[in-house]
Amino acid sequence: MRLLLTGSAGFIGSHLAAHFLEGGHEVIGVDNYLSGQPAHTERLRQHPSFSFVQADVSLGLPDVAGALDWVMHFASPASPPHYQQFPIETLMVGAQGTQNALELARHKGARFFLASTSEVYGDPLVHPQPESYWGHVNPNGVRSCYDEAKRYAEAMTMAYRRMHGLDTRIIRIFNTYGPHMRADDGRVVTNFINQALAGEALTVQGDGQQTRSFQYVSDLIRGIVRLMDVTYHDPVNLGGTEPITMLRFAEVVRSLINPGVPVRFVPLAADDPRQRQPDITVARTLLGWAPEVSLDEGLRRTVAYFRQGTLPAAPPPPAGAALHQSAD
Amino acid sequence: MRLLLTGSAGFIGSHLAAHFLEGGHEVIGVDNYLSGQPAHTERLRQHPSFSFVQADVSLGLPDVAGALDWVMHFASPASPPHYQQFPIETLMVGAQGTQNALELARHKGARFFLASTSEVYGDPLVHPQPESYWGHVNPNGVRSCYDEAKRYAEAMTMAYRRMHGLDTRIIRIFNTYGPHMRADDGRVVTNFINQALAGEALTVQGDGQQTRSFQYVSDLIRGIVRLMDVTYHDPVNLGGTEPITMLRFAEVVRSLINPGVPVRFVPLAADDPRQRQPDITVARTLLGWAPEVSLDEGLRRTVAYFRQGTLPAAPPPPAGAALHQSAD
Repeated sequence: MRLLLTGSAGFIGSHLAAHFLEGGHEVIGVDNYLSGQPAHTERLRQHPSFSFVQADVSLGLPDVAGALDWVMHFASPASPPHYQQFPIETLMVGAQGTQNALELARHKGARFFLASTSEVYGDPLVHPQPESYWGHVNPNGVRSCYDEAKRYAEAMTMAYRRMHGLDTRIIRIFNTYGPHMRADDGRVVTNFINQALAGEALTVQGDGQQTRSFQYVSDLIRGIVRLMDVTYHDPVNLGGTEPITMLRFAEVVRSLINPGVPVRFVPLAADDPRQRQPDITVARTLLGWAPEVSLDEGLRRTVAYFRQGTLPAAPPPPAGAALHQSAD
Repeated sequence: MRLLLTGSAGFIGSHLAAHFLEGGHEVIGVDNYLSGQPAHTERLRQHPSFSFVQADVSLGLPDVAGALDWVMHFASPASPPHYQQFPIETLMVGAQGTQNALELARHKGARFFLASTSEVYGDPLVHPQPESYWGHVNPNGVRSCYDEAKRYAEAMTMAYRRMHGLDTRIIRIFNTYGPHMRADDGRVVTNFINQALAGEALTVQGDGQQTRSFQYVSDLIRGIVRLMDVTYHDPVNLGGTEPITMLRFAEVVRSLINPGVPVRFVPLAADDPRQRQPDITVARTLLGWAPEVSLDEGLRRTVAYFRQGTLPAAPPPPAGAALHQSAD
């Protein structure tokens, strides 16, 4: 296969690119480094089937010669500190960026894959969230630049499907962690790891009773690849199903890195969801997919990456999962 | 004042342009006639202070020489049959169109006014809807092209306000009717009037127990003008406060035009809201605004327009409202 991937220098994009390259496919990566990292591009360049164009996909996609099988749109700031620093760019990559990618797919006769997000559910009033839940999103708040951009991107993807018959996929990615995250990602996983490695207090927002359900990045990549192999156009949740309170998560990170560091409580961020957890019934039944990497194992590998600045050696694939094992 | 108004050939845009022109202001109208009507432009051209540019605001706004006091973004298909026929264009005028208008306002040092919609509330679970209600919107349904475009437009407007300090206004317009509506608008007011004038059965969707709260267009124009005179950046609802069931509304239209026509029940449209009614506390307290034209009076004037194909003579302004009386 030959794929064009926007956001190839991002956390998830770089894992996805590596997965395809190691599977013998050709990847054209595009990134403007607004939140992506040049180091990921440099590592991917070691694969002869990888090429890269530095470009802002909101302003236009590169003129690619030859056929494409997939256009995969993974470009966007994704952590609250990043998208709140660049709200206009975040809105644009959801609208103009998505449409440019859809137009390229249409022009090339390629399939289209949209990386959407659990943030389309906002601060949900239904738990866990099935794909049929319409969400609870503040259209004007400080997070709206991301939430509304992704809801718009889904609506535009469905409009291209309805009007032009484009073969589309939409996933809603829940909290994902792993090696290759930016150290300054600004979300809780890297915050806690950074703080514990530096011997500083772990800052827990609010009373720490809000929960998250984390998935390790290789599980997400496996789900993405499986969805590419089926024909299904409605959104599909991909995320971890074991909720953990932020206070308990702080305990896990401390015990893994430095049990001596204290916990410090700080105010809750604006519009921060109290709880978010996917209903993965669709992914289970449609893809035979469920998360496989435990939080302990995933965190061990993530902490090793942040200690060493490089990826730890991959463990052997679990039995029966060899075909869909992710690249990291 | 000198204003640039997108959607000047639309139902509401043409009333707004006429209001400003009759108040001695200069209006530059922009429309691509996707849903606007050239006849409105021809009528507005009778004012020497009106100029018009036929352009698609999603692709770019005209290069206007000289200063502007306001950029007012009213361009968009607004009735379900129209925006479902043009979902991609509807999404674009909410994103690229809004951003082009914001950029023009920023470049000119002008204020910016966004026409948003009650559809940002979707099929609401809270009644009546205050501006603080986050809404209940299907991001993937057949109406999502309009609902999500307008939510995105609000988010982009707030992003320009936060990042560039733009002086912005946002209104959420609830069902509005009056002369100048397209005969093929496709929503209930013109549907019923057309059917009754033609001696055909009035088609009531579902069981007819879903409600709407209609406002006459001159009330809306009065609210818009008042909001321009205050400094307030959060969204403001403008709409009628008297809910009426669709079955009862059919009775009113029949009694006004042709009591002999029957009612025929047809299936409910997809994602059609069961009930929608504004909480206008903000408009009341901030603007001293409330609807003034009764449904009977407004319908009489609307029916006269559809019978004659021209605007009926305006009634005398109500006492105390002379300063803010709309143009029609």
